Amino acid sequence: MPACNPDLCLTLPDPLPLDSGATLAPVTIAYQQYGELSPERDNVVLIFHALTGDQYVASPHPATGKPGWWDRMVGPRKPIDTNRFCVISTNVIGGCMGSTGPASEGPDGKPYGQRFPVVTIHDMVRAIAGLLDVLEIDKVHAAVGGSMGGMQAMAFASDFPGRAERVLVLASAARQSAQNIAFHEVGRQAIMADANWNGGAYYDGAHPDAGLAVARMAAHITYLSEAGLTEKFGRRLQQRPDGSDGAKSFGFEADFQVESYLRYQGSGFTRRFDANSYLYITRAIDYFDLAETHGGRLADAFAHTSSRFCIVSFDTDWLYTTEESRHIVRALNAAGAPVSFVELSSPYGHDGFLLDTPGLDEVVQGFVS
Amino acid sequence: MPACNPDLCLTLPDPLPLDSGATLAPVTIAYQQYGELSPERDNVVLIFHALTGDQYVASPHPATGKPGWWDRMVGPRKPIDTNRFCVISTNVIGGCMGSTGPASEGPDGKPYGQRFPVVTIHDMVRAIAGLLDVLEIDKVHAAVGGSMGGMQAMAFASDFPGRAERVLVLASAARQSAQNIAFHEVGRQAIMADANWNGGAYYDGAHPDAGLAVARMAAHITYLSEAGLTEKFGRRLQQRPDGSDGAKSFGFEADFQVESYLRYQGSGFTRRFDANSYLYITRAIDYFDLAETHGGRLADAFAHTSSRFCIVSFDTDWLYTTEESRHIVRALNAAGAPVSFVELSSPYGHDGFLLDTPGLDEVVQGFVS
Repeated sequence: MPACNPDLCLTLPDPLPLDSGATLAPVTIAYQQYGELSPERDNVVLIFHALTGDQYVASPHPATGKPGWWDRMVGPRKPIDTNRFCVISTNVIGGCMGSTGPASEGPDGKPYGQRFPVVTIHDMVRAIAGLLDVLEIDKVHAAVGGSMGGMQAMAFASDFPGRAERVLVLASAARQSAQNIAFHEVGRQAIMADANWNGGAYYDGAHPDAGLAVARMAAHITYLSEAGLTEKFGRRLQQRPDGSDGAKSFGFEADFQVESYLRYQGSGFTRRFDANSYLYITRAIDYFDLAETHGGRLADAFAHTSSRFCIVSFDTDWLYTTEESRHIVRALNAAGAPVSFVELSSPYGHDGFLLDTPGLDEVVQGFVS
Repeated sequence: MPACNPDLCLTLPDPLPLDSGATLAPVTIAYQQYGELSPERDNVVLIFHALTGDQYVASPHPATGKPGWWDRMVGPRKPIDTNRFCVISTNVIGGCMGSTGPASEGPDGKPYGQRFPVVTIHDMVRAIAGLLDVLEIDKVHAAVGGSMGGMQAMAFASDFPGRAERVLVLASAARQSAQNIAFHEVGRQAIMADANWNGGAYYDGAHPDAGLAVARMAAHITYLSEAGLTEKFGRRLQQRPDGSDGAKSFGFEADFQVESYLRYQGSGFTRRFDANSYLYITRAIDYFDLAETHGGRLADAFAHTSSRFCIVSFDTDWLYTTEESRHIVRALNAAGAPVSFVELSSPYGHDGFLLDTPGLDEVVQGFVS
């Protein structure tokens, strides 16, 4: 089996109704497939990506050349074994890796920019269900996602009961908290404060890279744990450009290693991500509250589910805490859905679901298989 | 006693040597005095301000008209009783409320901007000691500060042993953590990403308000607690401009109350604070590690102290945690200095030291009196 199929793209046959009341058309979904679809079409593991993720789960990212974001989890004889499963991963609508988003051509042939409609997590999932329809996949073996991907997995289970046998939710929440909305708003304001943003119409000029980098830096802090940052960087100083030991510059260069690391994260991000997509996707996350359309009762969102659930949290994750996971578990219990819950111990904070957290592989493999 | 003495300003007689090796001259210190100096000159309570604070502790801020930042704590018959004590509070060097800072005239008569030397917490304290010399105050009854003000109080005790009888440190740390450096770096990058920043030379044109507002927004989140934000705002939507109930706009307006609040905090801040001062003061905080010049052993920083200490932390403060306070307490114990320690329970996070936290007034009054 090849490690990576060629890029795949598909345009939905119908316009997509959105939660806002608007309609999106045409809707193109860029996706990747790893492993072979069984003749019975019953071995699909659907993987939803997080805010800045994409469909390149287990194959190199075309812009950066880096391995897929879950390369350690997905592949032949890996915890999600592509010798057995057909993994399908899509780029969300609103994204910037091939699915219809703000950088796509609008009806007038020019990039949507801010004319792109605000989409929700439910809209993203509706588009993906449309993709499965075209691919004639009625039901997936498992729906899997971390962070925003976990929100999509829950929305998929809730909005399309019967279409996922198993639902695995990692480092996620059934609603975005006030603090997390606040961090996203800082990022959005940083982008919109960049003169190059130009109301979202920047595609034929300089992009708002400085603002996007600041947004990424702020968000990145929330993905790590305080203890992890202390262990990784502490107050250690950056080696000077001439190779000498670190010393305070008494200026505004990146004296501390943690500053240098953050700047690198920020600037690297601008080479692979679109600022408008960052606005739209953070908005979708902030709007997410799975209980909202069920009278505020989360259990009711799962009332018709036939899925088995596994909820995984990470003890140092302060973005989507274990308490948020317990909230999901309690609702699933109240709905009578089969659910297992694991809190894993990890030094990595929210990023724990992406990294080599002890026990994670076993949990994923055990539940998905 | 009048609630507020007229603005006071004083230029130090000597150039100020800085930790960077540079020298600052002239050095003007803007300060406020509340209460009368006793004939014995022995009733001074010296209050150090935090990052965005100033000398207007207990009198209206000249730019905003709002009450002083510690008006609830300082005044006649208040916990720090100005019928008894003479409170002196200064604006730090590097600041923007009258003390010499980046907006001050440099040697060529033009604003320093980025030509202002990077200063440290120790430099700030050295300048204040210079002010006390001019005022002929050998020893203060108490040195008090929260957050960066606590850093100054500790530095004052360490660098000028014998000059403070009591040292009260609230919501502070003996060193800036990696995570806190990271948050400051986000703020600095937001300012420097603003095209109006112009390398710091913006005083005769538009100021980098958008960048400064983003910096303030990011920092403001760290001053509150997650639970406090949830209680205060949760996911509640903002009333619409037409007075109707909140509804999602499916756009990028401030739909959530927490977004509106943050934007207000950001824009209000730009009316009273200078972006370059924000850069310099955050840098001073990031450079702070009281143990650094004592072989990394914090106890040695307090080896010659004759002060009594009181260290106060707030249980929901995740910027300067209780653990950081305990670290200070352990060092003071090791140095044989008398120290009491209190962790107060507060919903307000780091801002607990500024607000009506149960028990705070009693602790401050009891220790200072």
